[in-house]
Amino acid sequence: MAQKPSIPKGTRDFPPAVMMRRNYIFDTITSVFQTYGYAPIQTPAMENLSVLTGKYGEEGDRLIFKILNNGDFLRKAKSLDDPQKLSFEICDRALRYDLTVPFARFVVQHQHELTFPFKRYQIQPVYRADRPQKGRYREFYQCDADVVGSDSLMFEAEYLAIFDEVLSRLALPGFSILVNNRKILQGYAEVVGYPDRLTSICMAIDKLDKIGEDGVKKELVDRGIAAAAAEQVFDIIQYTGTTQEKLDFLKEKLADSPIGMQGIEELTEIFAYHQYLPHFQGTIEFDLSLARGLDYYTGTIFEVKAHGVSMGSICGGGRYADLTGVFGMSGVSGVGISFGAARIYDVMNELNLFPADITTTTKVLLINFGKSTQTVCLQTLGTLRQAGISAEYYPDGVKLKKQFTYANKKQIPFTLSIGDTEAETGLFQLKNMESGEQTPLALDDIIAQLNA
Amino acid sequence: MAQKPSIPKGTRDFPPAVMMRRNYIFDTITSVFQTYGYAPIQTPAMENLSVLTGKYGEEGDRLIFKILNNGDFLRKAKSLDDPQKLSFEICDRALRYDLTVPFARFVVQHQHELTFPFKRYQIQPVYRADRPQKGRYREFYQCDADVVGSDSLMFEAEYLAIFDEVLSRLALPGFSILVNNRKILQGYAEVVGYPDRLTSICMAIDKLDKIGEDGVKKELVDRGIAAAAAEQVFDIIQYTGTTQEKLDFLKEKLADSPIGMQGIEELTEIFAYHQYLPHFQGTIEFDLSLARGLDYYTGTIFEVKAHGVSMGSICGGGRYADLTGVFGMSGVSGVGISFGAARIYDVMNELNLFPADITTTTKVLLINFGKSTQTVCLQTLGTLRQAGISAEYYPDGVKLKKQFTYANKKQIPFTLSIGDTEAETGLFQLKNMESGEQTPLALDDIIAQLNA
Repeated sequence: MAQKPSIPKGTRDFPPAVMMRRNYIFDTITSVFQTYGYAPIQTPAMENLSVLTGKYGEEGDRLIFKILNNGDFLRKAKSLDDPQKLSFEICDRALRYDLTVPFARFVVQHQHELTFPFKRYQIQPVYRADRPQKGRYREFYQCDADVVGSDSLMFEAEYLAIFDEVLSRLALPGFSILVNNRKILQGYAEVVGYPDRLTSICMAIDKLDKIGEDGVKKELVDRGIAAAAAEQVFDIIQYTGTTQEKLDFLKEKLADSPIGMQGIEELTEIFAYHQYLPHFQGTIEFDLSLARGLDYYTGTIFEVKAHGVSMGSICGGGRYADLTGVFGMSGVSGVGISFGAARIYDVMNELNLFPADITTTTKVLLINFGKSTQTVCLQTLGTLRQAGISAEYYPDGVKLKKQFTYANKKQIPFTLSIGDTEAETGLFQLKNMESGEQTPLALDDIIAQLNA
Repeated sequence: MAQKPSIPKGTRDFPPAVMMRRNYIFDTITSVFQTYGYAPIQTPAMENLSVLTGKYGEEGDRLIFKILNNGDFLRKAKSLDDPQKLSFEICDRALRYDLTVPFARFVVQHQHELTFPFKRYQIQPVYRADRPQKGRYREFYQCDADVVGSDSLMFEAEYLAIFDEVLSRLALPGFSILVNNRKILQGYAEVVGYPDRLTSICMAIDKLDKIGEDGVKKELVDRGIAAAAAEQVFDIIQYTGTTQEKLDFLKEKLADSPIGMQGIEELTEIFAYHQYLPHFQGTIEFDLSLARGLDYYTGTIFEVKAHGVSMGSICGGGRYADLTGVFGMSGVSGVGISFGAARIYDVMNELNLFPADITTTTKVLLINFGKSTQTVCLQTLGTLRQAGISAEYYPDGVKLKKQFTYANKKQIPFTLSIGDTEAETGLFQLKNMESGEQTPLALDDIIAQLNA
């Protein structure tokens, strides 16, 4: 009996209309990355398991998809009673979990062939055995740009411009690019008396959107921070004012923390660079409560939020002092960003921002009137395609209704009818499928109009 | 201790220079597919294991990469002494092995949303646990176009034009598009007295390039075909002449095989259609010995070979009567083709066909002369990028030699120097890195030249 086919939970098929919208987003991002001098790389979907394990915490390790060894995979298996151990005996490879660890591995492995500072972008799917839920998938694309091998803060300024340009080109009506610096957060930790608790403080503050002020304070206390110190943290991060006022306020508050002061200097420099780079529609916001969850960030951190929708951040990023140390190459600082393509897709869908003409590849359908005009239709088809116009000829001389339904369903904007009369006069009927208007035109005029 | 990182055997990293060449091939193919009215789809990297098994023969089943279930995967395991059985108890999913089976699954699953004839293209990596060797990888891209839901032979003619246009646009100096028809091969089988042995005959003839005439004859005999019949087959497939002479010759030879005669009629019709479609540089060759290995083809079959290199076929394809029957949807005929992107890459590399200007994304590097001209450099950088010119500003004011080395290594074609004098006069030094020529120009002229 035939199987009823399905796909694994948490994965998706992308039909044409969705693909074309996704490509519109990816193409826009790619084009901006390239304009800023970033070059593409790709890494394999499968990495050696040892490259991935231990890089994403205990929880992350559990969510890695492992690939069963082929052949007699049980030969070396010893731990038949312990699935966790056994999985490492019968699997040498796993699917990539993100693009950052494979990128670090790539940089170390190819260090002698690369030109530093190395600017790369990478757009590939990643795989996580997370419990599937709305907006969370087991296969999804990441869309990253990084530069490694430079401490220059000009790159931080450049990423502000990249966020701004990509999202403006996608016509997002409003968005905020939030900026902070991990050194400033270290400053908070020092001035409230917990210099060794940066990670705890970041983790807690990062949840502010989700669990609110009281939730964060409670979590800080649960993590062993005194309630008074938690209050002090909030005294700082809730300060409001212009960027300059915030910088001045922090200079006072963090005066006793050299590293905190360094963070303030860095941001001052970045904002100074940025004023000379192109501005688009985004708002740059120095957000004193921005912390980011990932613990490898050591300098400036970024997050982008779209206005007018209720959704988490649509982009993120930051500077890291040492991405590649875990693979034996230390002292390589870098900064990188990531576009959340799936969330940007959802925002654009919700706000109806996709251009109408991107959901079809075909510009014109030649109607099939049967054998008598087949030759002229085939010749016309070839001429249109050679002029760069995406064209189809309906493959059979079936009822016109069926052919026009095909054009409608595929959202083909024009049809071209060449019956016996048209073949004789050389004036073909070009129909605009939206307006219903039909005009008899010579082929040259048709090409001009379709290429306009 | 830090790990020395590596990637799994048979997989590859793609650094920028390779990526850009590959993208050049993929972009060309995509652009032609779209001009012919094909729309993109994507399917997940992982399919349910049951969707894949039994579709590629016993050998294929062994080469499927299975994904270990997460969590306590041993809970339902019974066959701890039989790796083959056990693998099906501990793995529900596997990596796709080709794009054809996932496409068939997609068509069945989404049949009510699709518009037929459904024309799609799909460019995604596939995974095979083959023994790695030169030119054979465990992860490689397939590049397919198919149309399903139509018996029209116009699509066969269309694919001839697509092969021709793609490979001509890629500037291959010469290539042959070989065409035959499985019904004609069935005709051979019938007239030599083995009407039930089509598959054996195809499998054997398909090896002609590899094992030669004597090898094929021996294989036919080994497969139980009488030596005299094997000779008769060769009498047919070695006939030389024009396309018309071959058609006439076969009409005589296969006169007693109605299905063989139908194959001849089909090809006659296809060649007739094709003469009205655009012609490029390829040679269309009716190849009486073309058989193809895959057993789901039932009509016209294609293969493309590049001239001037010793390499197997670089493209293939054919018509199938029933792709989706295995998933419970029968009677859906289709025809599809596949571009062997990796082999096309190798051919283009060997024949030095890649354009020189595709291996860099950056058009101009602004030389960093330190703080005093930083502002004008940043402003110029922004202006260049807004004009659509891919530009970088070297991030630090280091020695000029180092900066020019960076430009050379990245094959950036132009540098722009703005020192104090240039900042004052507004005439910046644009240097052509290949000729070494340097010209002082105003920014508008620089933009015009770089955009030319």
